[in-house]
Amino acid sequence: MAGHYVVRNVARPDAETVAGLRAAGVATVHEALGGGLVSPEVGARQEGAAIAGAAVTVVCRPGDNLMIHAAVELCREGDVLVATTTSPSTVAVLGELLATSLRARGVVGVVTDAGVRDIAELRAMGFPVWARAVSAQGPVKTSPGSVNVPVVCGGRLVRAGDVIVADDDGVVCVPRSTAPEVLATARKRLAAEQAKRARFENGELGLDMYGLRGLIDGLGVQYVDDLPER
Amino acid sequence: MAGHYVVRNVARPDAETVAGLRAAGVATVHEALGGGLVSPEVGARQEGAAIAGAAVTVVCRPGDNLMIHAAVELCREGDVLVATTTSPSTVAVLGELLATSLRARGVVGVVTDAGVRDIAELRAMGFPVWARAVSAQGPVKTSPGSVNVPVVCGGRLVRAGDVIVADDDGVVCVPRSTAPEVLATARKRLAAEQAKRARFENGELGLDMYGLRGLIDGLGVQYVDDLPER
Amino acid sequence: MAGHYVVRNVARPDAETVAGLRAAGVATVHEALGGGLVSPEVGARQEGAAIAGAAVTVVCRPGDNLMIHAAVELCREGDVLVATTTSPSTVAVLGELLATSLRARGVVGVVTDAGVRDIAELRAMGFPVWARAVSAQGPVKTSPGSVNVPVVCGGRLVRAGDVIVADDDGVVCVPRSTAPEVLATARKRLAAEQAKRARFENGELGLDMYGLRGLIDGLGVQYVDDLPER
Amino acid sequence: MAGHYVVRNVARPDAETVAGLRAAGVATVHEALGGGLVSPEVGARQEGAAIAGAAVTVVCRPGDNLMIHAAVELCREGDVLVATTTSPSTVAVLGELLATSLRARGVVGVVTDAGVRDIAELRAMGFPVWARAVSAQGPVKTSPGSVNVPVVCGGRLVRAGDVIVADDDGVVCVPRSTAPEVLATARKRLAAEQAKRARFENGELGLDMYGLRGLIDGLGVQYVDDLPER
Amino acid sequence: MAGHYVVRNVARPDAETVAGLRAAGVATVHEALGGGLVSPEVGARQEGAAIAGAAVTVVCRPGDNLMIHAAVELCREGDVLVATTTSPSTVAVLGELLATSLRARGVVGVVTDAGVRDIAELRAMGFPVWARAVSAQGPVKTSPGSVNVPVVCGGRLVRAGDVIVADDDGVVCVPRSTAPEVLATARKRLAAEQAKRARFENGELGLDMYGLRGLIDGLGVQYVDDLPER
Amino acid sequence: MAGHYVVRNVARPDAETVAGLRAAGVATVHEALGGGLVSPEVGARQEGAAIAGAAVTVVCRPGDNLMIHAAVELCREGDVLVATTTSPSTVAVLGELLATSLRARGVVGVVTDAGVRDIAELRAMGFPVWARAVSAQGPVKTSPGSVNVPVVCGGRLVRAGDVIVADDDGVVCVPRSTAPEVLATARKRLAAEQAKRARFENGELGLDMYGLRGLIDGLGVQYVDDLPER
Repeated sequence: MAGHYVVRNVARPDAETVAGLRAAGVATVHEALGGGLVSPEVGARQEGAAIAGAAVTVVCRPGDNLMIHAAVELCREGDVLVATTTSPSTVAVLGELLATSLRARGVVGVVTDAGVRDIAELRAMGFPVWARAVSAQGPVKTSPGSVNVPVVCGGRLVRAGDVIVADDDGVVCVPRSTAPEVLATARKRLAAEQAKRARFENGELGLDMYGLRGLIDGLGVQYVDDLPER
Repeated sequence: MAGHYVVRNVARPDAETVAGLRAAGVATVHEALGGGLVSPEVGARQEGAAIAGAAVTVVCRPGDNLMIHAAVELCREGDVLVATTTSPSTVAVLGELLATSLRARGVVGVVTDAGVRDIAELRAMGFPVWARAVSAQGPVKTSPGSVNVPVVCGGRLVRAGDVIVADDDGVVCVPRSTAPEVLATARKRLAAEQAKRARFENGELGLDMYGLRGLIDGLGVQYVDDLPER
Repeated sequence: MAGHYVVRNVARPDAETVAGLRAAGVATVHEALGGGLVSPEVGARQEGAAIAGAAVTVVCRPGDNLMIHAAVELCREGDVLVATTTSPSTVAVLGELLATSLRARGVVGVVTDAGVRDIAELRAMGFPVWARAVSAQGPVKTSPGSVNVPVVCGGRLVRAGDVIVADDDGVVCVPRSTAPEVLATARKRLAAEQAKRARFENGELGLDMYGLRGLIDGLGVQYVDDLPER
Repeated sequence: MAGHYVVRNVARPDAETVAGLRAAGVATVHEALGGGLVSPEVGARQEGAAIAGAAVTVVCRPGDNLMIHAAVELCREGDVLVATTTSPSTVAVLGELLATSLRARGVVGVVTDAGVRDIAELRAMGFPVWARAVSAQGPVKTSPGSVNVPVVCGGRLVRAGDVIVADDDGVVCVPRSTAPEVLATARKRLAAEQAKRARFENGELGLDMYGLRGLIDGLGVQYVDDLPER
Repeated sequence: MAGHYVVRNVARPDAETVAGLRAAGVATVHEALGGGLVSPEVGARQEGAAIAGAAVTVVCRPGDNLMIHAAVELCREGDVLVATTTSPSTVAVLGELLATSLRARGVVGVVTDAGVRDIAELRAMGFPVWARAVSAQGPVKTSPGSVNVPVVCGGRLVRAGDVIVADDDGVVCVPRSTAPEVLATARKRLAAEQAKRARFENGELGLDMYGLRGLIDGLGVQYVDDLPER
Repeated sequence: MAGHYVVRNVARPDAETVAGLRAAGVATVHEALGGGLVSPEVGARQEGAAIAGAAVTVVCRPGDNLMIHAAVELCREGDVLVATTTSPSTVAVLGELLATSLRARGVVGVVTDAGVRDIAELRAMGFPVWARAVSAQGPVKTSPGSVNVPVVCGGRLVRAGDVIVADDDGVVCVPRSTAPEVLATARKRLAAEQAKRARFENGELGLDMYGLRGLIDGLGVQYVDDLPER
């Protein structure tokens, strides 16, 4: 009824913006964007990986990765595959073989709100994944779905060509059109944080740095030497 | 009423089959068997461990590991202890001392749908565990239970003597009688995957390798240049 | 109504007791205390860290870390910050900047039943955290709360000045007044375990070491060669 | 950065289509649409209610319902308020007072992936809600957000003016442009089901009605008198 | 590999035993059996229903109810259908049409660790279900599975012909061979409870009725007028 | 080590305050108190019940209700039993027999973060319970614990003699010493709500009633006719 589509054309963000967002990191990008975080349940399945790239989106029936194969053909150097299912499922939609195929296309990582497997092999390959579950149960290839339509992954809307940034803190999705502006904001934050870090290292308090004493006082918080009896 | 039994005789799988299944890995064995996966919630508590062995099964009251002590006596070189509770519990049923005792019997690892503790010591010992939780709360030793009766662990039926295979992808249980056949199937899959891997590395698509284009077309999936307006 | 307080005076445990409890480890301390475990959901976010220190407690509105800034000022060398929220939240209450500030005050780690971020940076700094979630979503600084009042963290009551012990097995809270007694008990347990470990390594069974055979028999557990037909 | 907007213009579906979809019910509409189901965790908080209406969407910071007040002004007779938060929260975003205000505007119900309270009063008023949690903790009114922008509720994309259908089976979102077509399909399904129901009542089997015997046979399923030994 | 089977012959319990177990209720039967409880997550989806019957078991691929249609043909008057999936899924495996078919065969209710839909219609029909989820998402009919093989439902092993007892307290599975003995034990418990109820109503304490004072004293519990200072 | 105590003396709140808090309801009391809510996971197991009373607190080992029997003796007319366990457990700590005993003592209801059973009988008796789970698995009576010590229930500290208020919205705990003041505040809120209700019914907007337009404007929220392109 709604129809199943494989959309060929994806407008991608420019490589410099993508590289800048990866360097800024998920936490900073999330603050600069003011949202866009994929649920923390879609967690890093390795330590220390940090990627960014254009989203190629897939929606599959649970336990079925047929449409991921259709998506591979549309992936380009630097893309991030975002694989979702139409209802919750821990079945793996990706393992080492498919990762090999994705890597051959230049894909830099996978984000999925379903499961992944061959996790030791994926770590050994250095192919990073963010997933809701690790599960050895593999998918069938029988049901229709769509590629490069808007999807919801971990509670977050992702459109093909949006910038996915992922590291140990999770995954954030930046709409393509706002990516340059978000990067500029992120860089300002990083610069500001650099200055704050030095001050914190020197023992300055956030209370003073951010001028919070008046706010706390105005909210009626009372400083007391000892806890009042109740 | 149902009675509590400690069953002494366990028919074990032959060592070569066990070794073969360990080498094949959980994901491949699960596919070869067509099932048998323990819930992903019973996860690896260390990275890189891979074991296989005959199941010695235990069912305890939650928070009580009395019957695990009864089970230790029945363990042999190469066994895997599978410890379950009669209702959900995160209380640890195993710590470093009991692991020391199990290792002295030749046990190669533990799978439990309850908790474990002393996790740093277990990692240092190289004694691998798959568990639903890490919890410092320890068990009492007061309630009856059974050893080597059929148990359900992570939603999966396990009989004493079944082959437990466990690695970073989780845990799978292979019925003893089908283990040799499963191993043969697993080896065929591994050989086939080897060939596929090479083709994927060369950029061949799953769409072509698996002949999926016709299937996708027959399912009514439409290839379009751009997403239709809604 | 209930009022918001920042309590300045905190009676702290002596340093030797704290050091002893850290060395004993969470599992042993929990047994010696007979309780006090913070929920396993508040898990270690790094491997191998082991800390202990006096609790500085904070209660914040979810997604708001204003009061943590108030707490920093009250922290001293060797303290552990325990940050809670008035209802469940995965929003990060701590990142690398705040950790830098805490470290400058001598704080040795943070326990929170909310989220943390900048997890890669925290690991690189060697600043350990135990948290319910890793999330890149950061807090605002707008709502009142309290510092050094009794809080509930992971289902456990924590008072300012209680001893927090945290390692790979989780987090336990020892009331300050009982800490010396708990340490003495913990040390006895450790000595006893040392002896047991040697016996287990030599193949002695828990059944014999703990004298459990009679108990099992008395509970009506039957030893059988084979499982009775049902 | 991303900006906060209150969008005044909402194209709404025609009343007849909405009435038809309500009558068809969530399960049938979901099948006719081939998707669109809000997560089952966003459940009915009363029995027997069945509504449909145009979505007025809101996104709030967790524990803050300021923007719902902005949304009320934009609600019209027959609308359904869809209230979401930027990260998971059980704090109530709606109680009896706000429901009174919404009802005065003609709103027929509320769907939220956060909490609701005054549940007894809401039931007594006959004002139906679908929510992730019942919680007495109320919101503040301090943070910005947006109204009538696309939101994700229970893992499902909802745009202002989409048709929300909700009953004891949950909540489904039908894109406005496809609603008439979905209704036509739903009515065909209902008619077909009517015929099937009569045949089922007469004892006809699904195996025969749907012609499944050949499929089952072709899949290699074996009919046996007794379970083969393993 | 493991093979898919539809097993025709099912030894069923006698009707009187089944009726007796239904009358005893889930809680009493569970105590009499000493186990067998299906996870509380598989909950009653209506109030006040109480059934018992012989299990007809089905295992399906998640989101696929093909094999339930095969099972219907094997159902007889008084049976209970127990429908499981090979991995977790909230997709409905049963709705009102299939319930109509099952009822025409004399089936008295359904237990499933997946989802159900048409919940209002099922309540109106008086056809009771115990399920993990209510979800409007319906299944496909494409994958093989098995009927009347041993299954695990809600963490509990169920064999075809076992007695399923279900009411507001949940679901318990009684192995067929032990059912008469369990019923006898249950009846003794009910008689004993009748006597205890009268004594409790008269104000007698459990401490005295069960003779617990000595036990509590022996465990080192201290009676004090006021809580000791800590 | 920490010791197990049964504390006899409990200072109870006066009956009028308790009655007033019950009439105000959980949501209003929670707002008046500014906290104190027990986790929504500890939910009402019947519709329409509303109670308040002095807390008699119990802490048990999971799956063990020995200490509840000790608590019954200390209960008085109008009390509410608050039963907790030392780690998470769904095992029932209360059924119809124990409820009969509690009712004979004048107890008006039970709150527990573990399980309850005989739920149909409890509803029929009109004895209300708030619990984390319904489970037919019953407890043993073997382990020590404490009565009328401070406990944590659903993440909330409860002291013996605190006022427990519970209705369809959940459970809130009011410290005894602040109860009269909380009641006064609650009554003011109720009076204020009465006035607001009338204004909402007349179509007045919260935006105007609470004067929120300036706040929203000051937060940078933009009113637009149509959603800006992205």
